[in-house]
Amino acid sequence: MDHVDALRAAVGAEQVLTGADAQAYETDWRERYRGHPLAVVRPGSTEEVAAVVRLCAQANIPIVPQGGNTGLCGGATPDDSGRAVILSLQRVNRIRGIDTDNDTMEIEAGCILQTVQKAARDAGRLFPLSLAAEGSCTIGGNLATNAGGTQVLRYGNMRELTLGLEVVTAWGDIWHGLRGLRKDNTGYDLRDLFIGSEGTLGVITAATVKLFPLPVAQCTALLAVESIASAVAVLNRARSGLGASLTGFELMAGNCLQLVAQCFPQQRLPFDGPSANSPWYVLMEVSDSESEAHARERFEVVVGEAIEAGLVQDAVIAASLAQSRALWHLRESIPMAEKETGKSIKHDVSIPVSRMAEFVQGTNAALQATFPGIRNVIFGHLGDGNLHYNVARGADWTEEQLLARQDDLYALVHDRVHEAGGSISAEHGIGQLKRDVLPRYKDPVEMALMRTIKAALDPDDIMNPGKMLDARAP
Amino acid sequence: MDHVDALRAAVGAEQVLTGADAQAYETDWRERYRGHPLAVVRPGSTEEVAAVVRLCAQANIPIVPQGGNTGLCGGATPDDSGRAVILSLQRVNRIRGIDTDNDTMEIEAGCILQTVQKAARDAGRLFPLSLAAEGSCTIGGNLATNAGGTQVLRYGNMRELTLGLEVVTAWGDIWHGLRGLRKDNTGYDLRDLFIGSEGTLGVITAATVKLFPLPVAQCTALLAVESIASAVAVLNRARSGLGASLTGFELMAGNCLQLVAQCFPQQRLPFDGPSANSPWYVLMEVSDSESEAHARERFEVVVGEAIEAGLVQDAVIAASLAQSRALWHLRESIPMAEKETGKSIKHDVSIPVSRMAEFVQGTNAALQATFPGIRNVIFGHLGDGNLHYNVARGADWTEEQLLARQDDLYALVHDRVHEAGGSISAEHGIGQLKRDVLPRYKDPVEMALMRTIKAALDPDDIMNPGKMLDARAP
Repeated sequence: MDHVDALRAAVGAEQVLTGADAQAYETDWRERYRGHPLAVVRPGSTEEVAAVVRLCAQANIPIVPQGGNTGLCGGATPDDSGRAVILSLQRVNRIRGIDTDNDTMEIEAGCILQTVQKAARDAGRLFPLSLAAEGSCTIGGNLATNAGGTQVLRYGNMRELTLGLEVVTAWGDIWHGLRGLRKDNTGYDLRDLFIGSEGTLGVITAATVKLFPLPVAQCTALLAVESIASAVAVLNRARSGLGASLTGFELMAGNCLQLVAQCFPQQRLPFDGPSANSPWYVLMEVSDSESEAHARERFEVVVGEAIEAGLVQDAVIAASLAQSRALWHLRESIPMAEKETGKSIKHDVSIPVSRMAEFVQGTNAALQATFPGIRNVIFGHLGDGNLHYNVARGADWTEEQLLARQDDLYALVHDRVHEAGGSISAEHGIGQLKRDVLPRYKDPVEMALMRTIKAALDPDDIMNPGKMLDARAP
Repeated sequence: MDHVDALRAAVGAEQVLTGADAQAYETDWRERYRGHPLAVVRPGSTEEVAAVVRLCAQANIPIVPQGGNTGLCGGATPDDSGRAVILSLQRVNRIRGIDTDNDTMEIEAGCILQTVQKAARDAGRLFPLSLAAEGSCTIGGNLATNAGGTQVLRYGNMRELTLGLEVVTAWGDIWHGLRGLRKDNTGYDLRDLFIGSEGTLGVITAATVKLFPLPVAQCTALLAVESIASAVAVLNRARSGLGASLTGFELMAGNCLQLVAQCFPQQRLPFDGPSANSPWYVLMEVSDSESEAHARERFEVVVGEAIEAGLVQDAVIAASLAQSRALWHLRESIPMAEKETGKSIKHDVSIPVSRMAEFVQGTNAALQATFPGIRNVIFGHLGDGNLHYNVARGADWTEEQLLARQDDLYALVHDRVHEAGGSISAEHGIGQLKRDVLPRYKDPVEMALMRTIKAALDPDDIMNPGKMLDARAP
């Protein structure tokens, strides 16, 4: 019996895809990477996942776990050797249970994020993870990459939302770690070791996650500010004035919103006069456990004081849910508007909030010096220190010229991120995309510890080999 | 040069203690464990810690890291072989910096927790970790044991409060991982692997921790409830009505407060009539970013609705800070009152909140069946699912009879905790105390993964050997 037949025997012949049936799994959705697997295997339960891993371990077949295949760094795409198996978790997708008294939910790796959000809402609870791909990304992928998104300021990343895990190890054993406990100090934190490990240490098959009360009301405000330093000062005041009710604090460069208004004329900036041309804008969101009137009232106090202190030039506080949505829509339209004007070089970076102003100013200047006429498209989650520091071609650049300089641009920006104590991947992970630049920015002791752990938990390097780190490198 | 001389050369002769000078370090503060070290070594910097570890690694000398020596499980006490070095971190105790714009603080392992709280407060920020030993415990110990305490419901354990670490590995290398970033997805989560590892994988020398806004006002209420099920229903309502303002939710059995009133007559229960003999009480705390009046008003809504729903029999909402303190003082006096009446058997356990009522009822009944006349002393952080399920002798028991049955009592309670999906150590860790019972309750795959990691990161078993797990066991 050859390997593919053995896999068929383990999960059912119709769940082992090859040839044309496998194509949809072979390419990442940005179409940057294309691989060629031995087969795509779709187990239907944790036990079947374990059986597949045991088969692969015995035959030394590399395993590439895959969820919704929406990753941005090529972490779920195999190489083109034809040796690896893509292990799709899509069929391991039950919601095993919701415990409203314990505020927890037990969900399998293949659950779509949106399905999980909805199940929580139907039970009168909030599962706060929210990101652009939520309609197709899976919980397993969210765990493997420690997904972030728009609600991190208040609720944390996927890591902070997770209490317990079920994992199939590289040997094909099942670790039953689905604990729903807020306090548990009985040994090494294996949960957080597997979260964010991008499938290189084992296969996460299920998780116990935290639920929260649904907010009673939400309110949004758009502020025009003169500088990043002012935005940081407003963030400080909002944190102390609003406490944990502050659920969003987004920074946008003026040219981003002007680009949106230009590309999508039905969207309007709610300012006239000089504030329509402000160098920076802040979008703030408050989630309230009392009422919409109370949310608005709290906003008025904080924003009023910031205006008096000269930190905010102009402000619009949404008077209705529709207005709140329109303000968020401006923010969410930036990537689309950016795309309309051609390809850009994207950086998903984080910087200590206190060094953000200096970082942006210094990097903008350095870019202009090295790549004259280049255009910045800067926006992000200032509350988390997470910036989408993107770079687009200027008027006298062609798209080809820009893309030809991609690696030089990456290096300049990432070097400065590193100098500012930041991270070259805030929320997207490493995958294939940033694997080879990682050692440039990572403490060598940390790289050595990572390799030691990889070698200990996956000595034959069959778990997603070549992702995040090159285990075969010296 | 012998080993002690080499250590003297590394850190200065006066910082290597032996004989009578070493005694204060050789015993844990509950005086359950007494060890005999080769010497106590007190390095003054991270570099000196690394030098000591390198010396010990070369000479195969076991290292027992120690902070404030306030642990409850014997994790910082050496064995009596005279081979091990106690590595005291007390002199590595600088506050390296406070960044109020980034809401972070860089602190060394030897800092006393109270000193850190005060430095944060002086900078207009809250460092929320708070626990009974805060006047003498150190940040390094808090990190090594993932300390919990009274503010976990809102702010999380030490793990959730930490962004970055500096660690000396078992080889004596320094990992510079002091990142102050809320989002950073660039590799394995080594931070959380070292946090809670009780010094068995390396020595934590410094950390970057999160700061929060200081609450503007706090308010406390004491509620009389009929059952744990009612308390859980009130918790649910408080969570959705107060959101993240809910910072405390403590459960106490009626006999605990009656014991306090009996032992300390100057303390009075604020109830008359039947509520003075309620089977259970709840202490609730709200922290508000607006005003005391607003905090009280929010309380009145939530408590009023709970009374109307028949969940709460009687309630007192503190009208002043002094009254709030008096209510907390009742709760904090339980362990002292307990001590007045003789020794008890303590269990630091956590249970999913949804199974708390069933667990307590079933365990109380099983205890009475096996140990007739035994007395329960039950209180804890219901909001975190953390219960101090203590057992005291009844009227017809002697203290000796109780202590003679200690292991049987542990086994009965821990078996039931395990059946309820709980943890046998919610916040105190494993150390020596629970090391040998851990494999009884831990998934064997999890035990195997822990041993694999220990063997990989500390192959010669020199880092706090014999704590948490027995690396030499088969």
